[in-house]
Amino acid sequence: MQKPSIPKGTRDFSPSEIRRRNFIFDIIKSKFEKFGFSPIETPSMEKLSTLTGKYGSEGDQLLFKVLKRGAKFEKAYSESNTETVKDNDFSDEALRYDLTVPFARYIVQHQNDIVFPFKRYQIQPVWRADRPQKGRYREFYQCDADVVGSESLVSEVELVSLIHEVLNELKLSDHTIMINNRKILASLVEFCNATEFFSEITVIIDKVDKIGTEKVVEELKTNIPNKEVAQLFEEVFAVSENEIISWLENKLQNSQLGQKGIQELSYIVKSCNVLGINNIKINLSLARGLDYYTGSIFEVVLNNNSMGSIVGGGRYDDLTKVFGQNNLSGVGISFGAERIYDLMNDLNFFPDNLSNPSKFMIVDQSESNINGLKLLQFIREKGVNSILYPEDHKLKKQLKYANSMNIAFVIFIKEDFNLNMSVEIKDMDSGNQDTSMLNQIIW
Amino acid sequence: MQKPSIPKGTRDFSPSEIRRRNFIFDIIKSKFEKFGFSPIETPSMEKLSTLTGKYGSEGDQLLFKVLKRGAKFEKAYSESNTETVKDNDFSDEALRYDLTVPFARYIVQHQNDIVFPFKRYQIQPVWRADRPQKGRYREFYQCDADVVGSESLVSEVELVSLIHEVLNELKLSDHTIMINNRKILASLVEFCNATEFFSEITVIIDKVDKIGTEKVVEELKTNIPNKEVAQLFEEVFAVSENEIISWLENKLQNSQLGQKGIQELSYIVKSCNVLGINNIKINLSLARGLDYYTGSIFEVVLNNNSMGSIVGGGRYDDLTKVFGQNNLSGVGISFGAERIYDLMNDLNFFPDNLSNPSKFMIVDQSESNINGLKLLQFIREKGVNSILYPEDHKLKKQLKYANSMNIAFVIFIKEDFNLNMSVEIKDMDSGNQDTSMLNQIIW
Repeated sequence: MQKPSIPKGTRDFSPSEIRRRNFIFDIIKSKFEKFGFSPIETPSMEKLSTLTGKYGSEGDQLLFKVLKRGAKFEKAYSESNTETVKDNDFSDEALRYDLTVPFARYIVQHQNDIVFPFKRYQIQPVWRADRPQKGRYREFYQCDADVVGSESLVSEVELVSLIHEVLNELKLSDHTIMINNRKILASLVEFCNATEFFSEITVIIDKVDKIGTEKVVEELKTNIPNKEVAQLFEEVFAVSENEIISWLENKLQNSQLGQKGIQELSYIVKSCNVLGINNIKINLSLARGLDYYTGSIFEVVLNNNSMGSIVGGGRYDDLTKVFGQNNLSGVGISFGAERIYDLMNDLNFFPDNLSNPSKFMIVDQSESNINGLKLLQFIREKGVNSILYPEDHKLKKQLKYANSMNIAFVIFIKEDFNLNMSVEIKDMDSGNQDTSMLNQIIW
Repeated sequence: MQKPSIPKGTRDFSPSEIRRRNFIFDIIKSKFEKFGFSPIETPSMEKLSTLTGKYGSEGDQLLFKVLKRGAKFEKAYSESNTETVKDNDFSDEALRYDLTVPFARYIVQHQNDIVFPFKRYQIQPVWRADRPQKGRYREFYQCDADVVGSESLVSEVELVSLIHEVLNELKLSDHTIMINNRKILASLVEFCNATEFFSEITVIIDKVDKIGTEKVVEELKTNIPNKEVAQLFEEVFAVSENEIISWLENKLQNSQLGQKGIQELSYIVKSCNVLGINNIKINLSLARGLDYYTGSIFEVVLNNNSMGSIVGGGRYDDLTKVFGQNNLSGVGISFGAERIYDLMNDLNFFPDNLSNPSKFMIVDQSESNINGLKLLQFIREKGVNSILYPEDHKLKKQLKYANSMNIAFVIFIKEDFNLNMSVEIKDMDSGNQDTSMLNQIIW
């Protein structure tokens, strides 16, 4: 018989892996709560119509769609036409691709029950039929926090503080929070009269971190008909960090949109500095791939590490428009928990004592095990996790098991045991075995 | 535009719902840990071949199957034949239907990394395309704990203790833990030479709680060709509770299997009584629908409540056989967390203070909000959750928001604020507003 296996790109998690993952999730969750965000959850499956068209045609192809069943399947099959058949004909639902679109759907569906500004967080898996590779999985967790229903930049500053606190708590303090503003990018592109190419331009300049500024300028030259664009961004990339704001103010002095973007950017950086957050850095090549961003955008990278961004986010002005609700501005961030997990594994950054081992293992050498069960209950009532070895195996095997479970002490009891008597205790670290009164060990 | 919605049988969970659900999950999880169980997680999707044939033909029809994509879909379609087409032709993977089969697959796949006896717990959603109705959802959580690789009855006693502790902690202490043994049922059926109908008989007698003993006897008469069966079970149902063991010992005196079952049952009940668990009750009509149980079986019901069973479980001797690993006995329980959630909602059993409201809301009446952000940081560093109202709205609107968020105090600050000065504070409960030094309120 063939050994069973799991679908490509998915993972089983062993106890030690789950404890490491929960170490990350618990820290993120407790900070979300500290900053006043409340948890929601949405179904794993959404109606296909909720998801399609929201992630571009490439995203649509990466959706895991749920097959129609029974009569619906038969109807779809019998009505299908070899010339025009599409997989969508056989599906009404799909697994969620991210947490953002389901959140937008949630807001519109429950708008009457929500008090705005609505600060929500959501930690759930998402599914993408991407080609699996190191660090990229078909089922993975997202950890999102968003503030919706307020245009105030206070939210941006709060989200930067939140990122700062989470990463410090994870001991990933050596990071840089990169910030940019889509209004500035839009205004720069407008300056070259190239607004129609905005989307393509952002995709190209977003590659600076991967391929460098020179190649990005090359690509702009090759792909954007309007030649001023490459020239302008070559100039942008040459501006030194502490001159960026004044350079932008000068260059975009006639653009209201540009001035708004500069103001936003300055306010956020200044406020973060006041709060003691100095590792925030303006990066004009940061563009974020997603079309819905309209204001501030963020990405966080570890310094001296090639893993890429571990947190991302930004402001969107009309996320819920596609579901019929206009004028609801929001801003959110998403922790790349899977990447953080891989990174912390590589860096050996997890605490050693994450598992929750039992302190005592009882070996009951009597027939009935009833004394062992009573002692077990007694110890657990003291709040100490313990186990009873359930089988009448050879002692060597039992001690080997205790070792593999990181048990500190093994207690041996016999038929005549009672709670007021002495017992044999083996210290699994030193190997010493002693006779002690129970109440000297457990109190 | 049509208001968006979610697939039939699925649910969105609001913050207060999530906090209630987590109240239940956290208690179950902490008790699992206390009893020495370790967490694992498996992928939401399993290969179709892992799942099909494990839940009977009815179960197979309730699987949510994942549609093939791209070239695989096209190939499946072009090779399909109108006469013989099945939905399975269009799918390689399906969403998990329970946690038991994936766990069996996990054990076999990772057998070389597992130290037996393996005590694992798993709290994850499962999916079934059942007809939705009150209390029955298409996506719902299961909470399972199993001990695999030991035949010792100590595990049964431990699981009963675990159930007892979880339900008491949830304030559901008024419950009965019903226990039976498949060996006894098998031996009774054997006694009537009706072993070939064992599976049908268990399905029928399992209905006693729903339709009563008389109708069950009727059904046995009608459906089981061997007429002794109905007669025997009529006799079984008439035995009074404290005579069950002696009645069985007498009736099944010539059956080794029966004697083994009686011994197991007696040991468990006796041990539980020694541990102070007296609400365990032998119920010979308890049969459990699943074919893989071979020894002890459990079900827990609330007394004076018609909700049905809220915990179930039992021992299985060969769960992993179907994946090629023999002789691995195990025993497990599953908490019906969704039913417990609905029940506790109905009974108003959740604590009032589950939400984690911010204590203070800051209203910064200055332009920049920077003082507000500084104060916010100061308060949060003291470990007190707080928020800053981000917008320059009318005071009335801000106070209404504070009320809806259950904020205890609103702090008003202006342009000239610093941390050593007095501030205006409004007690949202009494409505009183006072001037206080900050360090008198927050220390």
